Amino acid sequence: MNKKKSKAGIYLALALSIVLFQHVSAQKMVFQDASNFYLYGKAANTPTPYHRVDTAKYNDLPPVVKQLLTNSTGLAICFKTNSTSIAAKWCVTDKKPANNMTLIAQKGLDLYIKKDGKWQYAGVGKPSATCNEFTIAKNMDNSEKECMLFLPIYDELKSLEIGTNEGSKMTSLENPFRKKIVIYGSSIVHGASASRSGMTYPNMLSRKTGLYFINLGISGNAKMEKAAARMVSDIQADAFVLDCIPNPSPEQIKERTEYFIKTIREKHPKAPIILVQTIIREHGYFDLSVQNNVKRQNEEATAAFNRLKDAGMKDIYLITSEKLLGDDHDATTDGTHPSDLGFYRMAEQLAPQITSILSKYQIK
Amino acid sequence: MNKKKSKAGIYLALALSIVLFQHVSAQKMVFQDASNFYLYGKAANTPTPYHRVDTAKYNDLPPVVKQLLTNSTGLAICFKTNSTSIAAKWCVTDKKPANNMTLIAQKGLDLYIKKDGKWQYAGVGKPSATCNEFTIAKNMDNSEKECMLFLPIYDELKSLEIGTNEGSKMTSLENPFRKKIVIYGSSIVHGASASRSGMTYPNMLSRKTGLYFINLGISGNAKMEKAAARMVSDIQADAFVLDCIPNPSPEQIKERTEYFIKTIREKHPKAPIILVQTIIREHGYFDLSVQNNVKRQNEEATAAFNRLKDAGMKDIYLITSEKLLGDDHDATTDGTHPSDLGFYRMAEQLAPQITSILSKYQIK
Repeated sequence: MNKKKSKAGIYLALALSIVLFQHVSAQKMVFQDASNFYLYGKAANTPTPYHRVDTAKYNDLPPVVKQLLTNSTGLAICFKTNSTSIAAKWCVTDKKPANNMTLIAQKGLDLYIKKDGKWQYAGVGKPSATCNEFTIAKNMDNSEKECMLFLPIYDELKSLEIGTNEGSKMTSLENPFRKKIVIYGSSIVHGASASRSGMTYPNMLSRKTGLYFINLGISGNAKMEKAAARMVSDIQADAFVLDCIPNPSPEQIKERTEYFIKTIREKHPKAPIILVQTIIREHGYFDLSVQNNVKRQNEEATAAFNRLKDAGMKDIYLITSEKLLGDDHDATTDGTHPSDLGFYRMAEQLAPQITSILSKYQIK
Repeated sequence: MNKKKSKAGIYLALALSIVLFQHVSAQKMVFQDASNFYLYGKAANTPTPYHRVDTAKYNDLPPVVKQLLTNSTGLAICFKTNSTSIAAKWCVTDKKPANNMTLIAQKGLDLYIKKDGKWQYAGVGKPSATCNEFTIAKNMDNSEKECMLFLPIYDELKSLEIGTNEGSKMTSLENPFRKKIVIYGSSIVHGASASRSGMTYPNMLSRKTGLYFINLGISGNAKMEKAAARMVSDIQADAFVLDCIPNPSPEQIKERTEYFIKTIREKHPKAPIILVQTIIREHGYFDLSVQNNVKRQNEEATAAFNRLKDAGMKDIYLITSEKLLGDDHDATTDGTHPSDLGFYRMAEQLAPQITSILSKYQIK
């Protein structure tokens, strides 16, 4: 009887200590402001850390462009830690979610950890409200890890704190990528419809190539206005990729492309400039009006490119769009916006073409 | 002056007639109840057309399983039309959307049209409320087209009407697939995180193989209860695929797998039964607890399969999971649920393995 009692006592103590341990360990997270750590993906510092551009410098940009540049797509917090758990507290706006993307992509977080020399998916921060707290990764070993936490792609990140176990180390990870390449473009550059923020094609290109890509995706509004030309050309970058052809009308492409490229060229006499045709809209195989518009967009882009070439401009390149989404017509969420399948295929196609061009300029 | 006036008059008349034509043509859609047309993906008729199973017959199923079987994943309306536009009016419930899927997938519609002998993506119905009206495809030529409209995957479809141009023809398209194969499984069969309903892996398998797959995905709850065994074995199918290992605990897998498979075998003495290991969780490369649980799930599934084999059961097969999601760890939305990239890879891996097994039984 005594033995039984003592056994029961041991079990109870064990159960309690497990509960207590779990409770205490769940409590013991220390949160630090993420802006203390290296922020990947910025063209330059901005007064508000998670805005991509300080648009106050470009007052004549359309208001919608300014608003979209507050979205934190393409940005990632870089840090090192030996914590076995990584959590986050963050706030976004109450913007209504779009129906062609997950909330995780639009308002959530996406963690990659370097493993065997490669960046590898580790966990997401799932949003449920305007302000959120979520444990992104847990039950890890306590080796020191290099981490990149990709930020929400279709919302403005108002604040972010990163949590690690009390007593663990957390330090900034300096820029893990080489050179600087701007991608100015449409919603497709911006990230619709990646399933999480690490899966936009500029972020995939970074991981694939080791190069630093600056995401200037401006959903629906990459229309090559003069103010946008000034903004893009002001960036101290080694190369420029223009994947904006999906947004302007064929007439706007005809009118604006040469001015846009010449403006970049003036400030960057030797930088390679790569113009990318718009991907084919997958519903355009049935919608003859859409099909015709895309055809005309690409014809005008190609014609403008050829006029610049004929006028003697050097170091400009055109990437055509035929194979960017594969050939099964299944790589988009809504006909226009690539799913992860589409972005994977785009990155597979674009990476060798872009790196082959850039390597001529020792950008590698 | 007269000439100028008359020219202005002509332009005005032309402009007005364009506006009028667009207005009238936008109005001239005729809507028909979709339940008048062939409904692909059903195991048997049900009192409520877009429920997958009449769960009143299986009263001892857990309530959550019954609720999930009201979701219309795997179902598609099949019809032919020469209309140049296809629209829909539909209602779902006010269920809060999950954060790892698009609203288009959860509550929207996905249209495929046969082109050059293959089913090809044509357009989506984007939801914005509980009841919606949306033009899914427009500006098409007026040839007769075979259409499949895939239904919402994570909601209950309360009503659906399909709209075509007034004066166009619309008729039912009889079952375009061969044989019947049940897939009983987890959220991954159910469809999380496809970007639209046509991109679940059972729907991809249908298009890839021409075979008829019945989706019995029961998100988070494919736990092989006795009632579920009875429900699955009641279906008059030619083959059974069990991709349910992600949901039960290792202990439940040990206890339930043999009973589940034997129950199917009793009613279907010769039907091939294919057990699929759970895919590896991508966050499990860091979360050691998740990693261990998945390992144990697959060990128990394999052990149960081997016990059945050793006891002499014929016509059972095991598909292992190593390569189902590729090897870059980028094929899920949240570590657990494949994105379109993951489902594409799963379908690419599973289709040849499944068809190779089924062809031995003349199921092709």
